[in-house]
Amino acid sequence: MERKQLQKLLESLVTGNTSMDKVIEKLECLPYEDIGYARLDYHRQLRTGFPEVVFCQGKTVDQVAGIFTKLAAKTRPVLGTRAVPEVYAAVHKIFPEAQYFEMARCIVIPSADIREEKGNVIIISAGTADMPVAEEAAVTAETMGLKVIRLYDVGVAGIHRLLDHAKDLQKVNVVIAVAGMEGALASVVGGLTRRPVIAVPTSVGYGANFGGVAALLSMLNSCASGVGVVNIDNGYGAAALAHAIIESGRNDD
Amino acid sequence: MERKQLQKLLESLVTGNTSMDKVIEKLECLPYEDIGYARLDYHRQLRTGFPEVVFCQGKTVDQVAGIFTKLAAKTRPVLGTRAVPEVYAAVHKIFPEAQYFEMARCIVIPSADIREEKGNVIIISAGTADMPVAEEAAVTAETMGLKVIRLYDVGVAGIHRLLDHAKDLQKVNVVIAVAGMEGALASVVGGLTRRPVIAVPTSVGYGANFGGVAALLSMLNSCASGVGVVNIDNGYGAAALAHAIIESGRNDD
Amino acid sequence: MERKQLQKLLESLVTGNTSMDKVIEKLECLPYEDIGYARLDYHRQLRTGFPEVVFCQGKTVDQVAGIFTKLAAKTRPVLGTRAVPEVYAAVHKIFPEAQYFEMARCIVIPSADIREEKGNVIIISAGTADMPVAEEAAVTAETMGLKVIRLYDVGVAGIHRLLDHAKDLQKVNVVIAVAGMEGALASVVGGLTRRPVIAVPTSVGYGANFGGVAALLSMLNSCASGVGVVNIDNGYGAAALAHAIIESGRNDD
Amino acid sequence: MERKQLQKLLESLVTGNTSMDKVIEKLECLPYEDIGYARLDYHRQLRTGFPEVVFCQGKTVDQVAGIFTKLAAKTRPVLGTRAVPEVYAAVHKIFPEAQYFEMARCIVIPSADIREEKGNVIIISAGTADMPVAEEAAVTAETMGLKVIRLYDVGVAGIHRLLDHAKDLQKVNVVIAVAGMEGALASVVGGLTRRPVIAVPTSVGYGANFGGVAALLSMLNSCASGVGVVNIDNGYGAAALAHAIIESGRNDD
Amino acid sequence: MERKQLQKLLESLVTGNTSMDKVIEKLECLPYEDIGYARLDYHRQLRTGFPEVVFCQGKTVDQVAGIFTKLAAKTRPVLGTRAVPEVYAAVHKIFPEAQYFEMARCIVIPSADIREEKGNVIIISAGTADMPVAEEAAVTAETMGLKVIRLYDVGVAGIHRLLDHAKDLQKVNVVIAVAGMEGALASVVGGLTRRPVIAVPTSVGYGANFGGVAALLSMLNSCASGVGVVNIDNGYGAAALAHAIIESGRNDD
Amino acid sequence: MERKQLQKLLESLVTGNTSMDKVIEKLECLPYEDIGYARLDYHRQLRTGFPEVVFCQGKTVDQVAGIFTKLAAKTRPVLGTRAVPEVYAAVHKIFPEAQYFEMARCIVIPSADIREEKGNVIIISAGTADMPVAEEAAVTAETMGLKVIRLYDVGVAGIHRLLDHAKDLQKVNVVIAVAGMEGALASVVGGLTRRPVIAVPTSVGYGANFGGVAALLSMLNSCASGVGVVNIDNGYGAAALAHAIIESGRNDD
Amino acid sequence: MERKQLQKLLESLVTGNTSMDKVIEKLECLPYEDIGYARLDYHRQLRTGFPEVVFCQGKTVDQVAGIFTKLAAKTRPVLGTRAVPEVYAAVHKIFPEAQYFEMARCIVIPSADIREEKGNVIIISAGTADMPVAEEAAVTAETMGLKVIRLYDVGVAGIHRLLDHAKDLQKVNVVIAVAGMEGALASVVGGLTRRPVIAVPTSVGYGANFGGVAALLSMLNSCASGVGVVNIDNGYGAAALAHAIIESGRNDD
Amino acid sequence: MERKQLQKLLESLVTGNTSMDKVIEKLECLPYEDIGYARLDYHRQLRTGFPEVVFCQGKTVDQVAGIFTKLAAKTRPVLGTRAVPEVYAAVHKIFPEAQYFEMARCIVIPSADIREEKGNVIIISAGTADMPVAEEAAVTAETMGLKVIRLYDVGVAGIHRLLDHAKDLQKVNVVIAVAGMEGALASVVGGLTRRPVIAVPTSVGYGANFGGVAALLSMLNSCASGVGVVNIDNGYGAAALAHAIIESGRNDD
Repeated sequence: MERKQLQKLLESLVTGNTSMDKVIEKLECLPYEDIGYARLDYHRQLRTGFPEVVFCQGKTVDQVAGIFTKLAAKTRPVLGTRAVPEVYAAVHKIFPEAQYFEMARCIVIPSADIREEKGNVIIISAGTADMPVAEEAAVTAETMGLKVIRLYDVGVAGIHRLLDHAKDLQKVNVVIAVAGMEGALASVVGGLTRRPVIAVPTSVGYGANFGGVAALLSMLNSCASGVGVVNIDNGYGAAALAHAIIESGRNDD
Repeated sequence: MERKQLQKLLESLVTGNTSMDKVIEKLECLPYEDIGYARLDYHRQLRTGFPEVVFCQGKTVDQVAGIFTKLAAKTRPVLGTRAVPEVYAAVHKIFPEAQYFEMARCIVIPSADIREEKGNVIIISAGTADMPVAEEAAVTAETMGLKVIRLYDVGVAGIHRLLDHAKDLQKVNVVIAVAGMEGALASVVGGLTRRPVIAVPTSVGYGANFGGVAALLSMLNSCASGVGVVNIDNGYGAAALAHAIIESGRNDD
Repeated sequence: MERKQLQKLLESLVTGNTSMDKVIEKLECLPYEDIGYARLDYHRQLRTGFPEVVFCQGKTVDQVAGIFTKLAAKTRPVLGTRAVPEVYAAVHKIFPEAQYFEMARCIVIPSADIREEKGNVIIISAGTADMPVAEEAAVTAETMGLKVIRLYDVGVAGIHRLLDHAKDLQKVNVVIAVAGMEGALASVVGGLTRRPVIAVPTSVGYGANFGGVAALLSMLNSCASGVGVVNIDNGYGAAALAHAIIESGRNDD
Repeated sequence: MERKQLQKLLESLVTGNTSMDKVIEKLECLPYEDIGYARLDYHRQLRTGFPEVVFCQGKTVDQVAGIFTKLAAKTRPVLGTRAVPEVYAAVHKIFPEAQYFEMARCIVIPSADIREEKGNVIIISAGTADMPVAEEAAVTAETMGLKVIRLYDVGVAGIHRLLDHAKDLQKVNVVIAVAGMEGALASVVGGLTRRPVIAVPTSVGYGANFGGVAALLSMLNSCASGVGVVNIDNGYGAAALAHAIIESGRNDD
Repeated sequence: MERKQLQKLLESLVTGNTSMDKVIEKLECLPYEDIGYARLDYHRQLRTGFPEVVFCQGKTVDQVAGIFTKLAAKTRPVLGTRAVPEVYAAVHKIFPEAQYFEMARCIVIPSADIREEKGNVIIISAGTADMPVAEEAAVTAETMGLKVIRLYDVGVAGIHRLLDHAKDLQKVNVVIAVAGMEGALASVVGGLTRRPVIAVPTSVGYGANFGGVAALLSMLNSCASGVGVVNIDNGYGAAALAHAIIESGRNDD
Repeated sequence: MERKQLQKLLESLVTGNTSMDKVIEKLECLPYEDIGYARLDYHRQLRTGFPEVVFCQGKTVDQVAGIFTKLAAKTRPVLGTRAVPEVYAAVHKIFPEAQYFEMARCIVIPSADIREEKGNVIIISAGTADMPVAEEAAVTAETMGLKVIRLYDVGVAGIHRLLDHAKDLQKVNVVIAVAGMEGALASVVGGLTRRPVIAVPTSVGYGANFGGVAALLSMLNSCASGVGVVNIDNGYGAAALAHAIIESGRNDD
Repeated sequence: MERKQLQKLLESLVTGNTSMDKVIEKLECLPYEDIGYARLDYHRQLRTGFPEVVFCQGKTVDQVAGIFTKLAAKTRPVLGTRAVPEVYAAVHKIFPEAQYFEMARCIVIPSADIREEKGNVIIISAGTADMPVAEEAAVTAETMGLKVIRLYDVGVAGIHRLLDHAKDLQKVNVVIAVAGMEGALASVVGGLTRRPVIAVPTSVGYGANFGGVAALLSMLNSCASGVGVVNIDNGYGAAALAHAIIESGRNDD
Repeated sequence: MERKQLQKLLESLVTGNTSMDKVIEKLECLPYEDIGYARLDYHRQLRTGFPEVVFCQGKTVDQVAGIFTKLAAKTRPVLGTRAVPEVYAAVHKIFPEAQYFEMARCIVIPSADIREEKGNVIIISAGTADMPVAEEAAVTAETMGLKVIRLYDVGVAGIHRLLDHAKDLQKVNVVIAVAGMEGALASVVGGLTRRPVIAVPTSVGYGANFGGVAALLSMLNSCASGVGVVNIDNGYGAAALAHAIIESGRNDD
């Protein structure tokens, strides 16, 4: 609630247009809804620039379907991540327009509006096995209104594949680098571009990879600057950060 | 080397204005200088938007002084981080205009140019003991041409101190959140702003803090989106990422 | 065995009312029963304020059923935690009055007595996926005679959902904060209440969450004071500690 | 700010006794003071039951002295933890009545009021080397108005030393168990008492103790119930939790 | 090969009773057999006091059956550990006299000899869920000719169950303490007996137990002396060490 | 692209035999092919001495089949590692000459050429359960043209089995030591040979083995010199390194 | 307190020879002394076979001197471990007969009695740098009445140095193997002897040694059986376990 | 001892030229010398291709001097690593010809022989702060008779510095890649050369670098093949492995 709204509310109290009980209630309340197993945060779009996204993992099919129903009644698009096919089936029954991106494990109830693209992001991945994470980032970014350039399987063991696209890395607004194993991609990319690099470690690998820890540490210790890291396998988080960066560059109020 | 430059170079070969040996040399060479213990990367400004920064830790006083001398002959400002007073003394003897920021442990040889501010960043820290890291970020950001708003000691144990400034978090281009102990600041800040949040875990704390690991893991697992993490105590890295983000929003070629 | 009982026992020896063999036996023995694969500790209620609770995980169905049978013959209520439906089926066959709380994975053979409520505890959880742990705490607390207030899905990414209930946090006897991911909830709650806070990290999350370690470390390093931590996913333990705290406030002999 | 205060404030706005600007300011502001390197949280006593405690480690001598001066002007007692003798010397120069507890590394500016004791806590430590942590808990608890019973060097390798005091463990309001090495004390104590047990792992030990991790894990996995754990070496935190528990038992509004 | 044998062999060379080729072969060879996927170490009984034991886990059913067949042709008893029922079925088809101990997951082809018991060992376990590990130790020890006393479910949360048997701990040759969770049993037992204690951490527990690490660290840091630790869940190893200890006390050549 | 080729290319530009566009394209391009989910690196053989090897794990059956088809059209042999039988079935349908090595989990489309052996490598494994990793190394090495000597199940618990082959360790070009559990084999082997030893930790073991970490650390800390370590279970990597070593000894241009 | 003593005590109560108060006191009390910072456990010798040993690390000089004074008044020998020279100086001033073993960091106040040797132990160390730990074990063992054979610097990188003494490993009662780095010594020794092996990991090494963790894990995962492990650098603990083992073999009541 | 020598020895026994005692002694003995705190392994040169190298860290000055004296009497060159200046001073007093390499922390007593170079190795380091480790490798390699090419400060953040030398990486026998921070250098180098790459992680960095663990894991998980890893900061080990590789390529008996 902004200061202007607050002043207006208090004036309506002084003039008697709003009762004291109402004012107290408004001062105590922000828009969210309690549906028992979740409190839907309708205010989030105002506060963070994008509606609440449904993290489907760890929720029952019924819970996800219920949350989609509530959210879709108020806002579009609605995005669900980490969704298995069963979850999509339940959502799709209610919203036939819902789309499923299998590799990305994302459900999208699209918006009817045609939107201009806010900016562009290049998503680079080290290997074929990193694609699910890269696609989660790609689908999220596209749902949030960004233009996505995909550049997959350009790991540093054959660095010419990446160097061929060095110029592209300078032309976009944001670079997302997705890599498992030793995660060296983030450092090399960081040295080739002046754009912000969002590094996404993946759990791809084995042995002393420790489920993505090797790539994570590698990225946190990157000798290149301009690199921010998100959680292991967190393609969604990378896209959300890219969105915030691009939004930040578009308006400054 | 851009395509246009390459075409021009090859044309000068065809016209005979440049010898083949010269062209081969140019094709094989990018501007850096080998001074024995370091290869100074003068090309970095073009490639990544800011000249090479001197990480002083782990280098001898003579090495740092030598690198400063070489860099300052080509570019300004020159920034050194993790510098102890002895290192500053050596640099200051050569460059009397060099400044030392004690809490930030930074040396700056300033630029003569008066520069407009490229954008603004708010730096939030959880506790008094996090100040050295926060100041490293602040001095770096200012040296890179950003306007810095400092908001220190607003840890979540007294969350009203932070909520009082919730509006400020929406007005800047980038938010840097610096916190040790449990690092909860990043999540709370991330939920209050739509701006990109750069989270800096610090090694402040004890026991099961494990030198900053608790804060690092907390920030990587942030339930708020739009958060990117840098290495423990890496104030410099946070500022460099903020700089890249703000530069990205200013031009799109 | 209290001093008074000891004195009485020895007096009955002096007066010849009890034989020496009997006294030695009593001095050597406390009430428990060896049923081969378990030694049931009937004395526990006297010593720790609540009868032995059956941790079903890692025991065979027959073992659990056997232990329930023995315990229920001596005391009510009987509580089993981490029970899968097959275990409940076996117990239910013997005790038709046994109840199963599916989300909490708890079996309860209730007590016939109507009991006044000893005190109240608010159980706060960060997300929908934390509910199984929160419910284990809730069912345990209710079985132990506490009044439970549930406040779920109020994670710090939308902190207004929690701040709306700040006053409630001051009114209860004990606060239980259940959270996975970065576990920041415990610190924020700890700063909002003067009541003891029991923090329960959950294994909800992925990647650098490391099965709950991120939340655990976050809670152990809480910048708020008045916070005690139990094991990852240990909803039962949180409720048992809450029970001990409330019992401690009710009598002081 | 309680609802009653809020209503009163709004009424004074309606009646014109307070200006709108004033009301807005009050609604936006809670009592803390920004002294540059710290924001002192005078509101904390109302909110959490005890004034802000100064964690001296990681702050400069001047910063600590400044914070003590500000706090002592508003409230007594003032407690500082993790204070080295140099810090005490600086505080003592300003406040001659300040006391230093060397083993506990605590500074206390006492309150003039004679206070009744709110409740009692027994502090049990496993070995002589755990005394600094145990004493930090003891001094904190006494400063907060609790009666402290000390029972030191009763590690489980000679369990009769502990069993001799089994009855005492039942008589207090709270038990604090302080142990390094394998930290088994917490489990044994937890099995002997019905009172809430606050377990404090210490960094005492060597090798696979890993600076207190062995004791920490041991305590988190305690097979006894009713045990809450605080950070390694966090004697202060244990006492603050004990205080919150005892306060909770004394009033229930 | 003992010195005496060596001298005899060399004498037979000098006297011409054995050819030089034969001597060289003997000097180069110790008794083992290469069956492709394994080299059976028939010499092990002489060297370490007990024939090679078959660790079945990670071997195919055919490999285990093949190894049993080879070993049983040379020596009895033959012991296999970590054997699933399918493995037993295959061995049993070849050796009808083979026995299967389900909880211990052990296969034994018994020896025809009636053997006197070499010494006795008490096996103490903390909880019902630790029984598979305790039984692996028990079956191994019995197969090796030791007398085993079982004392199960005497965890330290109800320490009187253990204290009741304190005298027994002094009477045996070796004590094996098996415990998961916090593993405090080893320290308490170590303080109650003068006999060597072999501590076996188990993976029983959850959360910050980390698959037995909590118990392992606890046991390694035991404040009681006279405690040696074996790998997590290694009941076999504990029994083998107990056997070596008891053998060592029986002869001293 | 070698300098000579570059000079020739530029000369063809000067003479007009090649257009500028063509030259720029060549300068920008190295031989690889983008097939959507992978960029096949045909240049790798020139650069690293062996064609790209297909790591099948984490790729779909269709992806693997597609990559085999593309690679086999350009080069032989083609090697796939970590291949489950389903993957082999798909490849075998396209290439009936493809072979499957079940224990090694490798697919090989052999080369028609009869090749001389480049050198020999001995592969030593500690136990029967290490065989899959040892065989992955063996099949890879053989596919790369090396002669392989297998020496399995010679763990240090029966060290005479290894000492019997001490001379063999001196005669080969490279030694590969494969071991799980405590991984002591690498140190013992390293002390017995002057040849380079490639140590491969395996995940064989349990408990404090931590999926191969114990063996990995053991090998990294080997007190013997001349030992290089590859990732846990990385039989392929060991063979590839052996191949590079042997190639290095065969030519020095 | 044995059953016989208990019966006698109770008889004296019945006959009136001992008062009830006295009996209760005796039943409640075991022999230890509270000296403020320590509770000296005089009963330990009866219970565990050797008097309490003073772990000097983490105690002040005065505390150690006080404990020595108390213990030496009741029993001889007195052993202190982890003692720096300053601690020895203080003890030596009070007890001129006290000896200091510098490399072992041990203080011994010897016993006047000439004792037969109870058994013998061989202490094997891998490298020169492991000697302080090996000597702590040696001095402790000798103080406890064992005969010690030292075999130092026989690491497995030159395994013939160890094999030369293979026979000795069979002749002693107990083998103690002390090693840092990769700790392979324990496995090799374990395979060469039928005697119980006590493995002591040391913190000798660097890098991925992690302060002894590499050796610790190696020893816990030993492929040889009959090996028990003590804490990193715990020479004392190894000797105490050896003593318990040898005592166990000498009497069996 | 080779078979031929063995046969000869036995023949001399048969002919009576050597006594049986002598033969037994020879069969039992290999050349090393026991100097109390060390067993010098003179046989190592034969067995592993280079004389024993003195690891000075953790040894006293006297011990190092003593070992140098013994070794230098038998063989040249003698190499000591991890030597502080005090150690060098002591060695230099005895051997005036001893050289000290300060950055490498190495002492060398050179050989009088002029030796041809056995092969060449390129040592690449990522940053200036990695030089001590790189130099330890360089000095070791040179002492072992290799030609060393140094290429320092070519970290991947400015990858053109490395690509400029891509051809050199193909021309040497072995590549040693030394890097701290994220250690990406090893993967990039591995993709650029067909030569064996020895990766040396260094402890250079801070925070989530964890003393070299980040670089270590990165190198173990390298997506490039042909890479073997040695311990953190182990420049010596890398050179010793390079030496073994080059020796292996020079002779094949």
